[in-house]
Amino acid sequence: MHLALLHPGAMGSTVGQSLVDAGHIVSWLPEGRSAVTQARAVQFQSFATLSDLINAKPDGIISVCPPAAALATAQMVANALAEAEFKTIYVDANAVAPITAATSAEWFGEHYVDGGIIGPPALQAGTTRLYLSGPRAAEVARWFSAGAIQAIALSEGGLTAASALKMAYAAQTKGSSALLMLVNAMAEQAGVHDALQAEWALSQPDLQRGSERTAARIGPAAWRFAGEMEEIAATCTALGLSADFHHGAAAIYASLADLKGRSDVTLAEVIEMLARPTV
Amino acid sequence: MHLALLHPGAMGSTVGQSLVDAGHIVSWLPEGRSAVTQARAVQFQSFATLSDLINAKPDGIISVCPPAAALATAQMVANALAEAEFKTIYVDANAVAPITAATSAEWFGEHYVDGGIIGPPALQAGTTRLYLSGPRAAEVARWFSAGAIQAIALSEGGLTAASALKMAYAAQTKGSSALLMLVNAMAEQAGVHDALQAEWALSQPDLQRGSERTAARIGPAAWRFAGEMEEIAATCTALGLSADFHHGAAAIYASLADLKGRSDVTLAEVIEMLARPTV
Repeated sequence: MHLALLHPGAMGSTVGQSLVDAGHIVSWLPEGRSAVTQARAVQFQSFATLSDLINAKPDGIISVCPPAAALATAQMVANALAEAEFKTIYVDANAVAPITAATSAEWFGEHYVDGGIIGPPALQAGTTRLYLSGPRAAEVARWFSAGAIQAIALSEGGLTAASALKMAYAAQTKGSSALLMLVNAMAEQAGVHDALQAEWALSQPDLQRGSERTAARIGPAAWRFAGEMEEIAATCTALGLSADFHHGAAAIYASLADLKGRSDVTLAEVIEMLARPTV
Repeated sequence: MHLALLHPGAMGSTVGQSLVDAGHIVSWLPEGRSAVTQARAVQFQSFATLSDLINAKPDGIISVCPPAAALATAQMVANALAEAEFKTIYVDANAVAPITAATSAEWFGEHYVDGGIIGPPALQAGTTRLYLSGPRAAEVARWFSAGAIQAIALSEGGLTAASALKMAYAAQTKGSSALLMLVNAMAEQAGVHDALQAEWALSQPDLQRGSERTAARIGPAAWRFAGEMEEIAATCTALGLSADFHHGAAAIYASLADLKGRSDVTLAEVIEMLARPTV
């Protein structure tokens, strides 16, 4: 099969690799993408424009991009498909609220499949799952007959179940990381950071050890997590639950946006950035 | 020494027991207190009124009460001391914001000692620490020369360091418990609770096992935690940090207030209460 991938970054390129491993041709749009991204995508077929790609009549298009770009990407594809008078499966595998996914779903009708990726970029088998929902989810899951990514079609939760699952999962993992950074900043600002570390060493050794590790892990990706936290807040609101928690998490990640791409982020640096008033 | 305790509950009675174990006389005010509380306080000396207690000239008064009652208790004691023209050490060992502790401190001047208790009621040694701050903190720490509670005078963070440390610690532990309950409610409301549990079983087994246990633990105390979360939110605001996180946690605990004192709370019940609109 021919499957198109928009726009493969660190995560998306491993989704594409799994499809290549399963024997499919994977295509993408290299224009305007970074050298790092281009290097990760050498095994994919290039098209100059979205129109060219659609004229090649792919069996499906998979969107893997930052949450804030998900709707714009879906709309661009929907418009291009309409112009070409062509229909194909559209998998939105982004970390967006079910309500956002539902908006995209309207543009693709019965060809829409909702997706949510849980785990790190799939460099080895067993780490990463692509959850899928909607009437054609099982069909898309079968595309991943080989490769590191495990595709799972959900049988509960309706059309946007995959997005809902991703939101709940990320609400916990990224919410708790944001909380841990906030608490470190509280203690530092109040002048009791050493005392907190000493108490954690006694009663919560995982938190003491985890704070430095969490800072290093979330710092470089914080710019992207802020949008995801807002999608989670929107999910909570739509479900009648408090959105305050994840508005707070969004504020924390937004304060750390300047750490984008850095590989040597320290806890001390994160604490200092959180204590600085946001502009 | 003669040390007075206002108002010993599950936690406070173990503070008093440590003082008894260290050879002190501990007094309290049984009037209006529950039978359960009275049973826990048989080793303490009873006074009919606060005036009677103050006329006995205690060497110190320790306040251990729900956060929402901390200021009113401090003010009542300050007024009674002024009326009796007597001065004594006042230890405010409650889970309040440093800014709240600072208000109490003004009423007691140099006799004020700030406190914060971390750990469960001290039924055995090694589980629970009473942090103390302020000029006379070391003196109060020496009261606890025996017994299960370990008293630690803080050398950093100024007058209200003990409250700040308690706030940061509780921000993490009770904040993350609230988050875990919110995430379970999100998944349930979106119809993907089984899928989330299955994913957690693979990637976050502690969360899967911990959800039921957390519901049972926080349910009975949630009524009290809501006030503590608001104190933490006030702490964050005063430190220039986002308070949204703990406003969210306060909303979650407030929704669970009706579980007060229950010993058989299930995750399903917590989820159902969180999904119900708050009145």
